[in-house]
Amino acid sequence: LASKLPQVGTSIFTVMSQLAQQHGAINLSQGFPDFNCPPELIDRVSYYLQQGYNQYAPMAGVLPLREQISLKTELLYGSKPDPETEITITSGATEALYAALAAILHPHDEVIVLEPAYDSYVPAILLNGGRPVFVPLQVPSFTIDWNLVKAAITPRTRAIMLNSPHNPSGAILKSQDLQILAEITRDTAILVISDEVYEHMVYDNQPHQSMLTLPELASRSFVISSFGKTYHATGWKVAYCVAPPALTIEFRKVHQYLTFSTITPVQYALADFLTNRDHYLNLPDFYQRKRDLFCQLLQDTRFTFQPSTGTYFQLVSYENITSEKDQDFARRLTTDIGVAAIPISVFYQQQTDHGLLRFCFAKNEETLRAAAQKLQNL
Amino acid sequence: LASKLPQVGTSIFTVMSQLAQQHGAINLSQGFPDFNCPPELIDRVSYYLQQGYNQYAPMAGVLPLREQISLKTELLYGSKPDPETEITITSGATEALYAALAAILHPHDEVIVLEPAYDSYVPAILLNGGRPVFVPLQVPSFTIDWNLVKAAITPRTRAIMLNSPHNPSGAILKSQDLQILAEITRDTAILVISDEVYEHMVYDNQPHQSMLTLPELASRSFVISSFGKTYHATGWKVAYCVAPPALTIEFRKVHQYLTFSTITPVQYALADFLTNRDHYLNLPDFYQRKRDLFCQLLQDTRFTFQPSTGTYFQLVSYENITSEKDQDFARRLTTDIGVAAIPISVFYQQQTDHGLLRFCFAKNEETLRAAAQKLQNL
Ligand SMILES: CSCCC(=O)C(=O)O
Ligand SMILES: CSCCC(=O)C(=O)O
Repeated sequence: LASKLPQVGTSIFTVMSQLAQQHGAINLSQGFPDFNCPPELIDRVSYYLQQGYNQYAPMAGVLPLREQISLKTELLYGSKPDPETEITITSGATEALYAALAAILHPHDEVIVLEPAYDSYVPAILLNGGRPVFVPLQVPSFTIDWNLVKAAITPRTRAIMLNSPHNPSGAILKSQDLQILAEITRDTAILVISDEVYEHMVYDNQPHQSMLTLPELASRSFVISSFGKTYHATGWKVAYCVAPPALTIEFRKVHQYLTFSTITPVQYALADFLTNRDHYLNLPDFYQRKRDLFCQLLQDTRFTFQPSTGTYFQLVSYENITSEKDQDFARRLTTDIGVAAIPISVFYQQQTDHGLLRFCFAKNEETLRAAAQKLQNL
Repeated sequence: LASKLPQVGTSIFTVMSQLAQQHGAINLSQGFPDFNCPPELIDRVSYYLQQGYNQYAPMAGVLPLREQISLKTELLYGSKPDPETEITITSGATEALYAALAAILHPHDEVIVLEPAYDSYVPAILLNGGRPVFVPLQVPSFTIDWNLVKAAITPRTRAIMLNSPHNPSGAILKSQDLQILAEITRDTAILVISDEVYEHMVYDNQPHQSMLTLPELASRSFVISSFGKTYHATGWKVAYCVAPPALTIEFRKVHQYLTFSTITPVQYALADFLTNRDHYLNLPDFYQRKRDLFCQLLQDTRFTFQPSTGTYFQLVSYENITSEKDQDFARRLTTDIGVAAIPISVFYQQQTDHGLLRFCFAKNEETLRAAAQKLQNL
C-alpha cells in the first residue's frame, strides 16, 4: 500500500499530549482549556438530548444556529450572511478547512501557505491533489511580507490560506493587510481560505480583522470559525464556514459526502446559547487576564517573549536557556521539567527552527502558576 | 469555479425530508427512527458533559470505547481487533467511508461499486481521484453475481465496496459470498471497504456476515459500522472503522486531517453503554417486529414486496399502481398521498428505474399504521 501521506506521522498535538500524560507533566501543549464550558450550555445540550433531538441535523446545519451565526456576524463585522445559502455547520474547523480545499482544488492547483502553518493545511492540500507554495512569515513578529506573497503567485495559484489570530504565533492581521490582500487578489481567480477560529481572542483592544469585514474579500473567501474555542468545548467538534452562495454550493457538495451533518443536540444548544452575546463579547477580557497572568509569571523565568496579541497561545524564545533544537527541548521540558509545550519547527515544511516554543494559557490560574514555578527552575 | 462534483445536487435524503416537511407528509424516506435513544444512554452523555469531558478526544477515539468495540467484535464475529492499532472512531460512517477511500486511492485507481449504491460512495471515490466501476446487483433479489464482479476487475482495481445489510434493498450477504470474495481477492492488491452500519438489523435468525468473521478477508478490509443506527441516534454522527494495523495507519493519517476527533462526551457514554450487550443483542428482534408489522400493513395495499432481510428499510414494487417513473411517483406520494419514500433509481449512476421505492420502518407503531392507512388509498 503506497501511502498517500508518506511524510505524515502522528500529529504533534497527540505526541506531546501523550508524552505529558506519561510523565505527569502539566500540559500546555495541545490547545484546550482545563476548565469546563458554561453550565447553562451543558444544560441546553442535556435538554435537547432528552427531548429527542437526536436524529440527523439538516446537512447544512440546524437553521436556528445558522441564524445566530448570521446575527453575530452582522453585530461584529457589519455584514449579514444568508443562513440559507452562505453558512454551513461542520464537524469542527478541521472538516471545514478540508471541505473548502476539496471543493476548489483541481490537480496541480497551487495554494499559498504562510509558515509556520497549522498542521492540517498541508496534508489537506496534498490529499486534494494541490501543491502548497510556502511563504515564510517575518520573524520574530510573524507579520506578512506581502511582497513575498506577490512573488509566490503564479497562474496556477488557486487559493491563499490565512489564519488570524495566528496559531502558533499569536500574531494578528491589521486592516492594512486586508486592503493589500484585496488588491492582490482583485481580478484574479484566487480564493481565500481564512481560518478565524480564534476570532474572539484578540487582545489590547485591537479588533479582529475578519475577511467578513470587507465585502470585496468576503466575496471570495471561505471564513471558518469554531464553537470549540469560543465555548471551551474543543471536544464537541462543531464549527462553521461562511462563504458566498457560489462557493457554499460547492462546499456543501463536499461536506455532504465528508460527514453529511454534525451532532444535532449540540447544534440546538449552541443556537440557544448564542443569543447570550455576553459570553463571546467578554472572551477577549477573559483570556487577556490569563495572558497577562501567564506573561507576568514568565517574567521570573529565563524565557523571553512579546505578549501574545491573539489566540490562547504564548510564544517564547529560549535562547537564554539552551541551544537545543526546539523539538529536543520541548521533549526534555516535558519529561524532566514537567511542562509540555509545542515546538514551532513542526509547523514548517523544512522544520525551520527559530528556537521557539508555544504554551497554551487557556488554563486555570493554579495550572498556570504551577507551570510557571516549574519553568522558573530552568 | 469549475465544480469538482458537477453532477451532484442536494442529496435525495435532504430533498425528500424537506418535501415531507413542506407537505406535512409522514416521512418514511430518510433513514432515522422517530423514537428517542435509550434514556440511560442520554443520562451518560449528560453525566460526562457535566463532569467536563468536553475537550478533544484522542485522535483515534477514547480508549474505553475502542475496547468495547473490540469486545463486541470478539463476541459477535470471533475476532478481537486491537483497540490501539486496529480501531478508529470517526465522525459518522460517512467520514469513515471517505477516509478509507482517501487513504488508499491514487489517481485513476478503480473501485468496484455494486449498484444500487449508497449515495456517498461515488462522490467520495471521485473526489479522491478514483474511478467507480459499476456492477449491478441482480434484480429483484439484489444478490451479487460474482461473475460480473470478476469481469469488472482490472489491474487498476484498488478496492471493492460492499454493504451488507444492503441499503437501499435490505438484502444481506451469505457466508458463500464471503468465501467467493476471499477467493477473488486472494493474491491481489484489492482491498475491501465494507459498510456494515446495519450489522445489528438482520432478520429471520440469519447471521450478519461481517468481513471480520473471516480472518483472510479481515486482513484486507476496512470494516465500518455506526452507533447512530444501533442506538437510535443518527444525529450524533459517531461511527468507527476496524482495519488491520497497516491499513489503520493510513486511515488515521487521513482522519487526523479530515476531522481529527469526534465528540468526547458521547464517546465515553457509548463506552459505558456498550457494556450492556442486551441493547444490540435484542435489536434484530426489536426491528423484526417493526418489519413484520409494516409488511402486514402493506398487505392491504397494492404494493408488492419481499420482506426485508436486513436494515430498517423495506423495498416495494408499485407496478400494480402506476407506471410513473420512481422519482415522479415518490414525489407525488409525498405531496398527494402524504407518505415520503426514497426512489431507488437515485442509487444508480444511470438512474436505472426498476419501479421500486424504499420505506424506512424505524418508526413507532402509530406512525407505521398511519402511513399504511394512507398507502391503502392508492
Ligand atoms: C486538533 S488538536 C490541536 C489543537 C490545536 O488547535 C492546537 O493546539 O493548535
Ligand atoms: C445521511 S442521511 C441518509 C440516511 C440514510 O442512511 C438513508 O436514508 O439511507
